[in-house]
Order: sequence, then structure tokens, then C-alpha cells
Amino acid sequence: MALSNNHLVIMAGGVGSRFWPMSTEDYPKQFIDVLGVGRSLLQLTFDRFSGICAPEHIWILTNQKYADIVRRQLPEVPAENVLCEPCRRNTAPCIAYASWRIKASDPHANIVVAPSDHIVMDVPEFKRVITQCLAFCSESDAMLTLGMKPTRPETGYGYIQADLGSSSVRNKEIFRVDSFREKPDLETAQQYIQNRNYFWNAGIFIWNVRTIVNAYRMYQPTLAKLFEDISGVYGTPEEQAVLDSRYPECENISVDYAIMEKAEEMFVCPADFGWSDLGTWGSLLAQTKHDMHGNSVIGPNISVFDTKNCIIHATEEKKVVVQGLDGYIVAEKDNALLICKLSEEQKIKQYSEETK
Amino acid sequence: MALSNNHLVIMAGGVGSRFWPMSTEDYPKQFIDVLGVGRSLLQLTFDRFSGICAPEHIWILTNQKYADIVRRQLPEVPAENVLCEPCRRNTAPCIAYASWRIKASDPHANIVVAPSDHIVMDVPEFKRVITQCLAFCSESDAMLTLGMKPTRPETGYGYIQADLGSSSVRNKEIFRVDSFREKPDLETAQQYIQNRNYFWNAGIFIWNVRTIVNAYRMYQPTLAKLFEDISGVYGTPEEQAVLDSRYPECENISVDYAIMEKAEEMFVCPADFGWSDLGTWGSLLAQTKHDMHGNSVIGPNISVFDTKNCIIHATEEKKVVVQGLDGYIVAEKDNALLICKLSEEQKIKQYSEETK
Repeated sequence: MALSNNHLVIMAGGVGSRFWPMSTEDYPKQFIDVLGVGRSLLQLTFDRFSGICAPEHIWILTNQKYADIVRRQLPEVPAENVLCEPCRRNTAPCIAYASWRIKASDPHANIVVAPSDHIVMDVPEFKRVITQCLAFCSESDAMLTLGMKPTRPETGYGYIQADLGSSSVRNKEIFRVDSFREKPDLETAQQYIQNRNYFWNAGIFIWNVRTIVNAYRMYQPTLAKLFEDISGVYGTPEEQAVLDSRYPECENISVDYAIMEKAEEMFVCPADFGWSDLGTWGSLLAQTKHDMHGNSVIGPNISVFDTKNCIIHATEEKKVVVQGLDGYIVAEKDNALLICKLSEEQKIKQYSEETK
Repeated sequence: MALSNNHLVIMAGGVGSRFWPMSTEDYPKQFIDVLGVGRSLLQLTFDRFSGICAPEHIWILTNQKYADIVRRQLPEVPAENVLCEPCRRNTAPCIAYASWRIKASDPHANIVVAPSDHIVMDVPEFKRVITQCLAFCSESDAMLTLGMKPTRPETGYGYIQADLGSSSVRNKEIFRVDSFREKPDLETAQQYIQNRNYFWNAGIFIWNVRTIVNAYRMYQPTLAKLFEDISGVYGTPEEQAVLDSRYPECENISVDYAIMEKAEEMFVCPADFGWSDLGTWGSLLAQTKHDMHGNSVIGPNISVFDTKNCIIHATEEKKVVVQGLDGYIVAEKDNALLICKLSEEQKIKQYSEETK
């Protein structure tokens, strides 16, 4: 495997509404320094691939309205590598576009597809896993997905059932996928945990460009034809205009449903590198550094008294004092303030909309 | 009594630290729209005297650093009526200065001295009481103080013991003062309430200018001599410079201690017009309009869910959502945020200082 063929596709078009007011439709969470470390989640995603993919082989898929934010946050990435969807069509059209676009410039590309808004605590382990997955895919037509070792019977994720007896001679850490499972109920999730061969689907995929393009041709011929039809414009000044006119035709469908669940040669690499999709404030609290009272305090000048199990995110406030809270979210951004019990955080989306 | 001799002295030099972050040393609570009605406490104080004192007979005693705020908030009051102390010396020097200054322009003045940061809910009743007190003082050498009918055994106020058998033929609502009492302990306060002849000292005084000047001459001859000595400069361009040089000599002493507790001819007018000195967030909650769950919500765009007995003050925030709080203060101003149990509000001053 040559580093020069490694490509990364970062999916950065999401609209986070569960992290209001930190995350808004105009500035969703992937662009925010959620962890208070001085880098946004998108920037941290970029950083994780340093030494694996050259910046000119990093492609950001996003919405037109976020293009400027992406280019400002990732000046190392060539401006033309920021690929803009004119409208939202879920992940299958998006990954198809990126795949055909990359094939036009590098027909031997090996590609990692990764979300822009997840966190990884153990970056060296992440790099080790990704590197071996890229090596595996460069030498085979396998389609590979990362399976996160579950730490709790989470009902908010899809699961991947692995055939743990199937490891190849070539790589003892990679197994055939038996099935993809939708978000389970609690009882089923508990069963999955006990069985030890179920892993969280983190939405991180690795394959070579020939394999994914062929998979689209086989399982999504309409999508494949569309991106094949316009292959003359990739990398030219006409690309955006042609995409803008054709992309709306694409079916709104996820890559999991469109490809993964249909493909024969699906593999999973179980991994354990402190992953979280930061889907909820609770998961942010679980994943970030705590003080001795279980508080995660993110902001330059926050003082807490008699307070425990709270997440306080106020990176713009000059001064915050919190006294006497247990189990709350306190978040302030752009002159919007949220105070809400962590146990009620599923209501945040509704709150942010009702009070518009 | 002629309206033309009525004067009002508003004491507006206070530094509110218990209402942080709403109130700060740079912008204390008398200048803030605490009630969310579009007028600051100072402006509401001014408004209450409409029809009683002409604007050119309204005098504001404040610190040099607040002079611009006062003039901006009260454009109806002549700029030269804003009297600036060069340093803080408590209320006795301050009222002495105002008295000599007013005497220089109107030797027949009848004067009300009032704090700038209190609230009054029943303004017509307030006007009725003040008007009769001014009439009483214009015709006698009495020194009059308002006594608020206590609604609870408050230990945070001084009390006035009235001789309820002493009402004069001239006015059935005005009584001699038996004694002024310092802030009592709870048991004593409860006794006061039962006795029915004890009233809260609200710091509102009424007298004619000859009486108060004579009282200073008798009980505070040093202060009296100082303001007598400089009487040639009142109303001239030299006034501020001379005051700046002499005022620091004044003893730091309250008018209660310097005059009231010594004077023979002290009277009290018991009154009941929904008064509060807004000394604490709790008193603000007690005095302001509640929703059906006991919340006082002050700000343009605040939504509360599952929340009761809270005071939420965020007049600058674009949007606030509060869920699941009971008995808290939430206050945001100038990018400072406080969340604190109402029961712990005595710690606010310390919090605001510790975290500077």
C-alpha cells in the first residue's frame, strides 16, 4: 500500500439540533470546538488522519452553505476538495459523488469514509486500525466497516453482527459481517452485549474506489449511471453547475440501506479507541474530562460550587457561576442559553424549535 | 403648601453587589430595568414623583462615575441637578450637601429624600402618603420618616417604634417615634410584628430645609460648618471643584446614626404601598409578577418548562430555555451568567468577587 493512494472522505453536511444552542443549523456541531481544546470536531477529524492521508487527498462533502466554514477551518485542504451538495440526499448519493470524483483523479484510490462530528480518545490506536484496514482494502475487493466494541446496551445505534470464526489468514482482526441490525430495543441490545459478536456501526467505511463504484453499479444502478454520465466534468470549472442541476434527481437514501445491507463481501474490523458519535449531551459528558464531582466544564471562565454530574459549555461567556446543580446541561452560545436536566435532553430539539 | 417648594433628593450612589451579574459596580441596580417594564429603578423613582415635584426640583446624589448614566436616564432633570460626590461617605454628608445646595436656591423648600433602588407597587397610595407628609412638614419643624407596615419578621431591616397614642389633631396618620431599632434577630422581629407598632425603616425622609439644616447644626456641627463654609459656591461653576477638595474631609456616617437617632422631633407615617428595597433576588421574586408556577421571568424571549419558584432575569439574551429547575436564580448580563439556588443567594457577592 502506498500512502499516495490513500484518500479520506469526511461527511460534514449534518445539521445538529440536539446540541442546541451550542450547535445550530447555521453552525452545526462539526464546526464547533465541542471539547474546548481549540479545534472543532471537523478539525480533530482531519488531524486524526495526519500521516495517513495527504491533505490534497482529503475530500469534504458538505452543504453549499457550510463551504466557507470548511475552507476556513481546513486551510490545508485544497479549496476544490470541498465538494458541495446543492441539497440534502442522505449518505448514498453523497458517497457516490465522492467516489466517482476521486476515481477521476486517482483510479487506484483507497478510501476511508468518516463522519466529521465524532470523537476518538485514543488516536494512536485509531491510526493503527485505519492503517491496517486501508492495507486490507488495497489488496482486496472487500468493503470494510469499523465495529465499535459496545460498552453499554445502547439503543440509539445500529449494530453489526460479526462472524467471529471467519478471520482470514491475512488479517486476524477482520471478520465477515453476518448482518446489519437496526437500532434495537433494550432487551435485544442487552442480548447483543452478552453475545459479544455485535458491534456498534460507527459509519466509518474503508474500501478501494473500484470496489465501491462497482457496488453502486450493482446495487444502485440509477445512482451509478448519474455519476457516470457526468464524469466528464469532474475537476473542471463546470463541475458545480452540472452537479447542482443533476444532484436533486438522486434518491434520498442512506449508504447502509443502499449498499451495505445488500453487499456480499462486507467485512467488519472490531475496534476500541474511545469512540463516541457525541449524539447527545450525555455522551459528551461521558466522553470528556470530568472534575472530581463528575462535571464536564468547557469554557474559559466557569466556576462551579456544590455542583455535580453537570455539563457546562459556555465558550463565549466572559464569566459563568453555577451553584447547586446536579445532573444538568448548561449551554450558552450566540446569546442563547439552555438549562435542562440531562435526563430530559431528548426534548432539546423540540425546545429549540418551539421557541424560535 | 405650594407644589413650587417641593423638592426630591434621590440617593443614587449605591453599588449593588448582591444582584450580580444583573447589577455590577459599573452599572448598579438603580440604573437597570430590574422589573422588565422598560424603565430603570431610578426612572421609576422619578416617575413616582410626577405631579409632586417639578423636574427642576429633583436632585440626584450620585458618584461622579455614574453622572453620565443619570443624565442619560433622566433627561428631564437639569444636568446641574445631578450632584456628584467625589468619594463615598455614607448618607449623612450626602444629605447635608443636598440640603445646603437646595437651601441656596429655595430657602422654603420641603424635601423628600428617597433611595433610587426601591420599588413601590401602589403608586397612587404612595403619592397620597408623600403629599400629606410634605404638607405636614411644610407647616412644622417635624422630621418625618415613612414606616412600612411589616408583612414578615424580616431581620434584614431596621425598625421604627411608633407611639401610636400620639397622633396629632392635625394628622391622624402621623405619630411620634419612640425609638429607632437596629436589624433585630428573628425572635425580636417576631415580637415587633405582634406588637403592631413597629415599622420597617425604608430610608424615606420628609422635612423642610430649615429643619434639616438646623438638625445638622445641632447634632453634626462639623458637617454643618463645612457645607456652610462653602455656601458661596452652590450653583456656580466652582461648585464641583470645591466639593471635590472638601468632601473627603466628611465623616463616613449614616443619616440615621448622625441625625435620626438623636433628634427630638422625629415622626413616622406608617404606610402600606407595596414597598420593597429589592435587597435580594428573593425579594425581587416576592415582589414581581409570577406565572402560575411561581416563576418570575424577566426578559424578552424566555421559555420555561417543568420549572417553579425561579427568578429568571435575562434581558439581553436572544433566547433562553430553562427546564426542570425549582427555586433557582438564573441571571445573564454582559456575557456573565449566574445559576444559583435562591436559598444560597447570600453567597452571590462572594462568587462574583472570587471569580473576577
